[in-house]
Amino acid sequence: MAHSHMISLSLYVLLFLGCLAQLGRPQPRLRGKTQCDIQKLNAQEPSFRFPSEAGLTEFWDSNNPEFGCAGVEFERNTVQPKGLRLPHYSNVPKFVYVVEGTGVQGTVIPGCAETFESQGESFWGGQEQPGKGQEGQEQGSKGGQEGRRQRFPDRHQKLRRFQKGDVLILLPGFTQWTYNDGDVPLVTVALLDVANEANQLDLQSRKFFLAGNPQQGGGKEGHQGQQQQHRNIFSGFDDQLLADAFNVDLKIIQKLKGPKDQRGSTVRAEKLQLFLPEYSEQEQQPQQQQEQQQHGVGRGWRSNGLEETLCTVKLSENIGLPQEADVFNPRAGRITTVNSQKIPILSSLQLSAERGFLYSNAIFAPHWNINAHSALYVIRGNARIQVVDHKGNKVFDDEVKQGQLIIVPQYFAVIKKAGNQGFEYVAFKTNDNAMINPLVGRLSAFRAIPEEVLRSSFQISSEEAEELKYGRQEALLLSEQSQQGKREVA
Amino acid sequence: MAHSHMISLSLYVLLFLGCLAQLGRPQPRLRGKTQCDIQKLNAQEPSFRFPSEAGLTEFWDSNNPEFGCAGVEFERNTVQPKGLRLPHYSNVPKFVYVVEGTGVQGTVIPGCAETFESQGESFWGGQEQPGKGQEGQEQGSKGGQEGRRQRFPDRHQKLRRFQKGDVLILLPGFTQWTYNDGDVPLVTVALLDVANEANQLDLQSRKFFLAGNPQQGGGKEGHQGQQQQHRNIFSGFDDQLLADAFNVDLKIIQKLKGPKDQRGSTVRAEKLQLFLPEYSEQEQQPQQQQEQQQHGVGRGWRSNGLEETLCTVKLSENIGLPQEADVFNPRAGRITTVNSQKIPILSSLQLSAERGFLYSNAIFAPHWNINAHSALYVIRGNARIQVVDHKGNKVFDDEVKQGQLIIVPQYFAVIKKAGNQGFEYVAFKTNDNAMINPLVGRLSAFRAIPEEVLRSSFQISSEEAEELKYGRQEALLLSEQSQQGKREVA
Amino acid sequence: MAHSHMISLSLYVLLFLGCLAQLGRPQPRLRGKTQCDIQKLNAQEPSFRFPSEAGLTEFWDSNNPEFGCAGVEFERNTVQPKGLRLPHYSNVPKFVYVVEGTGVQGTVIPGCAETFESQGESFWGGQEQPGKGQEGQEQGSKGGQEGRRQRFPDRHQKLRRFQKGDVLILLPGFTQWTYNDGDVPLVTVALLDVANEANQLDLQSRKFFLAGNPQQGGGKEGHQGQQQQHRNIFSGFDDQLLADAFNVDLKIIQKLKGPKDQRGSTVRAEKLQLFLPEYSEQEQQPQQQQEQQQHGVGRGWRSNGLEETLCTVKLSENIGLPQEADVFNPRAGRITTVNSQKIPILSSLQLSAERGFLYSNAIFAPHWNINAHSALYVIRGNARIQVVDHKGNKVFDDEVKQGQLIIVPQYFAVIKKAGNQGFEYVAFKTNDNAMINPLVGRLSAFRAIPEEVLRSSFQISSEEAEELKYGRQEALLLSEQSQQGKREVA
Repeated sequence: MAHSHMISLSLYVLLFLGCLAQLGRPQPRLRGKTQCDIQKLNAQEPSFRFPSEAGLTEFWDSNNPEFGCAGVEFERNTVQPKGLRLPHYSNVPKFVYVVEGTGVQGTVIPGCAETFESQGESFWGGQEQPGKGQEGQEQGSKGGQEGRRQRFPDRHQKLRRFQKGDVLILLPGFTQWTYNDGDVPLVTVALLDVANEANQLDLQSRKFFLAGNPQQGGGKEGHQGQQQQHRNIFSGFDDQLLADAFNVDLKIIQKLKGPKDQRGSTVRAEKLQLFLPEYSEQEQQPQQQQEQQQHGVGRGWRSNGLEETLCTVKLSENIGLPQEADVFNPRAGRITTVNSQKIPILSSLQLSAERGFLYSNAIFAPHWNINAHSALYVIRGNARIQVVDHKGNKVFDDEVKQGQLIIVPQYFAVIKKAGNQGFEYVAFKTNDNAMINPLVGRLSAFRAIPEEVLRSSFQISSEEAEELKYGRQEALLLSEQSQQGKREVA
Repeated sequence: MAHSHMISLSLYVLLFLGCLAQLGRPQPRLRGKTQCDIQKLNAQEPSFRFPSEAGLTEFWDSNNPEFGCAGVEFERNTVQPKGLRLPHYSNVPKFVYVVEGTGVQGTVIPGCAETFESQGESFWGGQEQPGKGQEGQEQGSKGGQEGRRQRFPDRHQKLRRFQKGDVLILLPGFTQWTYNDGDVPLVTVALLDVANEANQLDLQSRKFFLAGNPQQGGGKEGHQGQQQQHRNIFSGFDDQLLADAFNVDLKIIQKLKGPKDQRGSTVRAEKLQLFLPEYSEQEQQPQQQQEQQQHGVGRGWRSNGLEETLCTVKLSENIGLPQEADVFNPRAGRITTVNSQKIPILSSLQLSAERGFLYSNAIFAPHWNINAHSALYVIRGNARIQVVDHKGNKVFDDEVKQGQLIIVPQYFAVIKKAGNQGFEYVAFKTNDNAMINPLVGRLSAFRAIPEEVLRSSFQISSEEAEELKYGRQEALLLSEQSQQGKREVA
Repeated sequence: MAHSHMISLSLYVLLFLGCLAQLGRPQPRLRGKTQCDIQKLNAQEPSFRFPSEAGLTEFWDSNNPEFGCAGVEFERNTVQPKGLRLPHYSNVPKFVYVVEGTGVQGTVIPGCAETFESQGESFWGGQEQPGKGQEGQEQGSKGGQEGRRQRFPDRHQKLRRFQKGDVLILLPGFTQWTYNDGDVPLVTVALLDVANEANQLDLQSRKFFLAGNPQQGGGKEGHQGQQQQHRNIFSGFDDQLLADAFNVDLKIIQKLKGPKDQRGSTVRAEKLQLFLPEYSEQEQQPQQQQEQQQHGVGRGWRSNGLEETLCTVKLSENIGLPQEADVFNPRAGRITTVNSQKIPILSSLQLSAERGFLYSNAIFAPHWNINAHSALYVIRGNARIQVVDHKGNKVFDDEVKQGQLIIVPQYFAVIKKAGNQGFEYVAFKTNDNAMINPLVGRLSAFRAIPEEVLRSSFQISSEEAEELKYGRQEALLLSEQSQQGKREVA
């Protein structure tokens, strides 16, 4: 977001969203090159619902052409309190925004250490400092279960707490699970980037579950309306082969496959005791800064590849807090972005996001997305949105409401005006440093063009060209007040 | 172009086009993987003409299979003196070569400062040094139009002058406009790289105009022969919403949309007064070197991303001047290339170009393109060209003339022999460091292969193998004289 | 393979295959996005045979859907002693494993010096130190053939010796030839990465021969069962034009085209005398280390692009030697990998390979490939392999035997159990740092998940969860013994 080496010649020199260029770095993206002949966009709610024991997964119908053009799918997940989303991995990166609630996220990164410890429920309050010398002993030599568990607490990889306003990155091929240990339902929305380079399968999302037999809805197959009863990946293997591999009894393998498990993808897990470093507002901020700094050093100064390990990868960031805004107009609203400057791994995934809050009747300056598609989900409130294609045709003109999604393709011109209640949204973008070009205001294309060129282009007078160029002093977010103020003067 | 750490063992060690390898850097390119079953290539002239008030745009028919295979389109633009090509942006990068004339190029880079000043026409010769203290004042508090314009001159982003022999890079999504302030028509040809990663729409070029209602021809839709009357992107928005956003009267919005504007994409703009730093041959060279050096520092030493800004991006280079030749044979001709070493942003776009001048009857050694497709446009003169595929079939064997375009796919073997008048061309290539492998001469594949291997491969004698290896001492450009000289001796 | 900056908290912290992350580096790969609807995998032997004078080329039938999904083709080459595979280049990178024998590889890198010298056969033992002053003389001024050859020995580019257990990288567009100067047939298998970014043609491999008229089988066209008589690339050019270019007589051009050459792609070359630096076990190791080190410096410390030249590119590595194993379990087997840490150019090609040796009845832990497809060729022995898709369906369950190939798509879960004779294989992977996630053992996903989550996920007791987590102390390669040992205890 910082903008260096630029000479501040005038008041019009401003920091700008994503204007830090990626010169010299290739942008490896080749999206749905098959079909982008968009005649009409839609503001949609989810089309398919997959309820489970302690949650609900909803999918948007990705047969709509704008999904194919953008190479994305979209889903919304609700996890009830004490609900556990079963461990699974996906063939596509998921970029999640937490709309409501709080939870714990587990991401398994193979080869990384089990750096967290928990104690089993039955040992709650028991021996907390097992003798270290005993750990190295062979498991076979232990007396029994009791003795074994006394010797060492349960170990596992890092757990990450998240909350409303966070973005989370779920890496493709990495096992994920989520637990809602809060008191309110956990609601998340997610972009599934099926056209992502990391996905070497076809343009359809797939989930591979390690447990349960969840109904599937991701991908176009699920969108045909047929709910498919999938099974977990253990189901396909022979019992004896698995028992040999795990070195356990056949009856445990039967439970692993769980053929009669009807709980779905999110199950009730009443008594889950997960130990996390105590969370507080004060602690969170410094920790995040430190992580970021560490990465900056690794990437920028000497990118010899050795100090970069997935084990300490940063996978989340809060973009809901007002104080983190990147663009702010006290009369019109604020915008917070998260890009590869804030979460470095986004440069591999070529994704970024923008959290916007437009105040009542404020206007987001008409603009186009220079290097990304945008999938905008309405968190709260409503807005009137118009989208125009390269022929000057209006491909969308409607009110969008809470819970709806609209995909605006790259280059298409768009204008948004918040309703009376204001307008809150999160927009996912298919570039790690998404740029927009506004048509109005202090950062507009018109400001950059000589007045004389505008005069000849539009066959207007100098005065009119000047009004077009300087009629708005605000930048991206335009207030209603300012407009009226100008009118009174004019 | 420089070649380091190579031991100069013999006379045959030579600097070579693009032989600086890109080890360790991924080459993110996935082009028209659908269809490259080329049976026959064509040397073509433009198929579609779109005249406008002060210019002409011509498109090649991209339905020919070699266009699809290469993932490119091609166009030629003529702008009459005092002609202004209206501001617009495209969904694909355009790589332009200036065939004739001179002009001024404006590229809007969002977020960058308005670092140039011009004065409106009515103030020509007026107040040139406005008080700086007044600039910060609120626009609303100004007395009237007169007073406002006295306070500050018109400001806008950098203007770039260009001339015959220049290549220009037009970035996708960035607003462009062009003015011919010279006395002769401005003629440019351009490769439209529709398969470029930057374009996340489908494989069809689109232009989004900010003004006018130009007929469109870019993309396959226009190539069906139907001329489409497109409108500018403001046309699709509601008048009142635009008026609110711009904070101007509705009547200006009407002019913005210009529904009755029939001037086309290039309009007459008689009195355009653009102020550029005075141009001269002497000044241009040092400035270019400085820019390049600056970039070298930013990219090579510490690529921490901070010193790289789009605001100072280099977007042009002259490859027409004889003294800039990269390959030169006084008896056969010269070649000048522009790649990511000369214009760093070409590494993002994965494009380069080559300007060639073959003297009368000179031969460009038979060769193939190792890592790029090549789109060759004939600037002047003519040549006989033969192209051979992997089955040994001749897919092209014809005379190519001024104004024709031929696309040679990657790997296809090609030979060119200039006609009596010589042969001038520009070849656009789909790799930022395009490499070729000649079959003849000092840099040929045969030179690199042991004589014994050649003998067994072709069932020839040692003497014949030696003749194949050493029969030509020249490198890429082969003279007629040298050949005759050898013949006399043999 | 090294793993830095990780705190060794417990015994479970282990070095892991490919866990060095590629944070911040884009992974530009977009493979067969059209079709990966795999219902059934096949273990296959080659379908098409193309015998030639001194060799045999066999192709797998790439019409099977897993080939299309993975974007690869596969071939096996046999070159008899004294056999020469004719010089040719391909449109796709080939990743070769040497199954049997030894040979000499020539790769022509345009623009690089001819740094090796050989003497023609007739001069064996002749003048070895020609006067350097004479080299610069014009060829035309020489007296005759005798005199000419006395003046300087034959020069050519670097030759590389290879042997059983080596991987070789054949770069697309670069001329290759191979000679078997050993006493036993040379057998190689190769992945042809048709979806590779370097290939800008369609998804079909093509070979462009510089000599002979070989039958072609690469690519889908050859797979239709029709053997096509292709000709070399000189065949398509006019005789006179070639004679002019080469500056040789027309009769030599006739031999270049060799229209009646029926020897096929691999010809007998009895008397080929190639001079290589003397090869010995002791010498090879230090040289390889040095090359690697050199590259490390160039890439990591200051990647200014200048010290990286294709001329010294590393294109091979031995992964057959036991002492080079990356994973080793004395009771179960060993694995050796080659990735972009060992051969830097693999990061451009986005390829890696793994050579595995499972001892009798050992199990390769059930796992999935996180970021790559895997093409596994059986070198020796046999194994039972099961593969499961995201629906829990078994898409493969069979014995695979020596000479068979199985392609396991990204994300699909797979288990392998060696037969009584053990199991040796080479697996080619479509990522330069391929990662897997095992489901069993010390590095498994279960180890990383809290016991409580496993309990709720599988509805099992703490004891059972513990058995799943800790039942196997081994990592990737699981022994039969350990399993029985545990069984006795349980």
